[in-house]
Amino acid sequence: MTDAPDVGELTPPNRTLMGPGPSDVHPRVLRAMSTPLVGHLDPSFIEIMQEVQDLMRYTFRTDNKWTIPVSGTGSASMEAAIGNLVEPGDTMLVPTNGYFGGRMASMARRAGGEVVEVDAPWGEPLDPADVEDAFETHQPDVFGFVHAETSTGVKQPNVPELTAIAHSHDAYVVADCVTSLGGVELRVDDWDVDVAYSGPQKCLSCPPGASPLTLNDRAMDKVLSRETDPRSWYLDLSLLEGYWGEERAYHHTAPITNVYAIREALRLVAEEGIENRWARHLDVARSLKAGVEAMGLGLNPEPDAWLPSLNAVRVPDGVDDGAAIDYLLEHYDLEIAGGLGDLAGDVFRIGCMGHSAREANVCYLVPALGEALEAQGADVDVDAGLAAMRAEMAE
Amino acid sequence: MTDAPDVGELTPPNRTLMGPGPSDVHPRVLRAMSTPLVGHLDPSFIEIMQEVQDLMRYTFRTDNKWTIPVSGTGSASMEAAIGNLVEPGDTMLVPTNGYFGGRMASMARRAGGEVVEVDAPWGEPLDPADVEDAFETHQPDVFGFVHAETSTGVKQPNVPELTAIAHSHDAYVVADCVTSLGGVELRVDDWDVDVAYSGPQKCLSCPPGASPLTLNDRAMDKVLSRETDPRSWYLDLSLLEGYWGEERAYHHTAPITNVYAIREALRLVAEEGIENRWARHLDVARSLKAGVEAMGLGLNPEPDAWLPSLNAVRVPDGVDDGAAIDYLLEHYDLEIAGGLGDLAGDVFRIGCMGHSAREANVCYLVPALGEALEAQGADVDVDAGLAAMRAEMAE
Repeated sequence: MTDAPDVGELTPPNRTLMGPGPSDVHPRVLRAMSTPLVGHLDPSFIEIMQEVQDLMRYTFRTDNKWTIPVSGTGSASMEAAIGNLVEPGDTMLVPTNGYFGGRMASMARRAGGEVVEVDAPWGEPLDPADVEDAFETHQPDVFGFVHAETSTGVKQPNVPELTAIAHSHDAYVVADCVTSLGGVELRVDDWDVDVAYSGPQKCLSCPPGASPLTLNDRAMDKVLSRETDPRSWYLDLSLLEGYWGEERAYHHTAPITNVYAIREALRLVAEEGIENRWARHLDVARSLKAGVEAMGLGLNPEPDAWLPSLNAVRVPDGVDDGAAIDYLLEHYDLEIAGGLGDLAGDVFRIGCMGHSAREANVCYLVPALGEALEAQGADVDVDAGLAAMRAEMAE
Repeated sequence: MTDAPDVGELTPPNRTLMGPGPSDVHPRVLRAMSTPLVGHLDPSFIEIMQEVQDLMRYTFRTDNKWTIPVSGTGSASMEAAIGNLVEPGDTMLVPTNGYFGGRMASMARRAGGEVVEVDAPWGEPLDPADVEDAFETHQPDVFGFVHAETSTGVKQPNVPELTAIAHSHDAYVVADCVTSLGGVELRVDDWDVDVAYSGPQKCLSCPPGASPLTLNDRAMDKVLSRETDPRSWYLDLSLLEGYWGEERAYHHTAPITNVYAIREALRLVAEEGIENRWARHLDVARSLKAGVEAMGLGLNPEPDAWLPSLNAVRVPDGVDDGAAIDYLLEHYDLEIAGGLGDLAGDVFRIGCMGHSAREANVCYLVPALGEALEAQGADVDVDAGLAAMRAEMAE
């Protein structure tokens, strides 16, 4: 048996987080997390729950009653969405154009569903015509798509077109908004999205642990009229409804501190204004894009699929992406990430999310990235990159 | 669509938490939660993960390699245990003597298992003879019991006797240690417990959000040789093994801040020493017990099943438990709770956990509880209670 381990004070390095998440947390959110706890059934906590729900509706652009933070990280809100909506025997249509479509498939199968696919290459969005074809062929009950693909830096355009196709086939739409909520235009009600989920550690700049989920009445009616229980007790929305709905009955102990944190993070969204916040992300990411392009690097997605919150920058020939990433961490305490799956080794993933979506961070990153690439002998023009970045900032 | 909600600064009331959890959080743990984040794959975070695992092994009194914080509150570690260990077709034996045996049953059924029961009244522990009989009758594959029943304030004695019965029938043992870990004697290895789970917000005095789980090799071998995937992707231990094991591969984004918090909470356990900590809980709870008994109130469980971390105090005749609980919250900012299930209305549940297990809290609670009962006309002797409490403290 082990003796008491001798573990010192917590002193992690002081990173600048410009990877695919977590992003830098706003100081006000960090401060909220050191607030002493009240009980999860305390009358004062019930009030806090209502405030969080109101703020979350505002951020999702929805009036959905069923709008809650799920007690876990983004994959928990994802599994809450899929595991409750997909019943044994249902068919779910998922995309193949990134890592998270594959995760949707795995969750749908575990829920007892059949999985069918609509194809697009990694790094490209879905084509509505392909979605229409897939509906004609498979008649799925549930259609999942990724609004902002964290693995590829691709934004799905044409969302209302996709939801219209699904609804004309009486299907339910689930949107992965992990890397868009609070940073990239997202309109759950106007776009007719039935279920949307997200994570807090991306454009909301909140530590992971309580993850946004919203369902409209149509989706919640399906969930509440299931013939069999969802396969997870922890994520069973019919039980969570008792806690987050009018009854406020005990289900599980809510992650109180994470609820405090997301309250503060969403309050910052409300103070800034959601449309201003989308505009800030776009502005800052444009400077980043201008800088890396003028250095001679290309962005991977086509312009209409560019995702400002996560920039997939092509790795120059001859450069070892892992070595460049390590260089930035070692010399600059700066986190970016490499590609996944079909794009492994081909792209850097550079986040521009929430409190990290600041000109100061871009000014820090662009020359540092140039230096890291030059250290490997890549032919990049750092001065041109800086000039273009600053010109874009001055616009 | 809603306009930006006008939500003010976070100012919850300053409660003293003496209910069934959360308990008062230690100031050092609160401070750790305001630490800026590093990424969940950062080399410095890998080191933090190892430290947390070491400290958690120490606290569970185990050398189990598979000892991790699950990314959710206590029910998530519970479902990780049951949902991975129970395969479709397996039979799980669960107790009926409290709320959490029922939750075990629900999780086992959702995992595809059959459920059989061993009976004991709410407020009493299991009798090993009944467990033996249930094994003879049902031959279950998995046996779950609750070491410290949060709903009834009952400690299960004779744990090594129960595990010996299960192992003589080749079954696996799962122990609910939510309200014992870090506060009440618990020896996972010496007692031959195969799987144990807990929550952080009880005797560890850490905000909920990352929950301790440990499995021995025998249990993990069963999990890793399942014929079908566990029904939750989020809680799939074969996938979590990739992240918390040697590979450190991405599964989901860990709740970084909650990992910081539990590291600090477990570090406080190591500094105090686990046996000293058990002794402190016992000492402080003895003073609480002496005080309420001398006031004329009884503790519900028999002495050998008394759970120092959660004291089930019988509600005097004629007293409305809810009114007394509200009185304490309103006049003293003091949280205690009522009974659940078969004990609803019959007991108060008064926690004595972690940073709340302090003489100062007991000195605050005993006369306040007396006053709340007197306000309803109950015949309690507060002076005698205080005298007995102080005499016990002086021992």
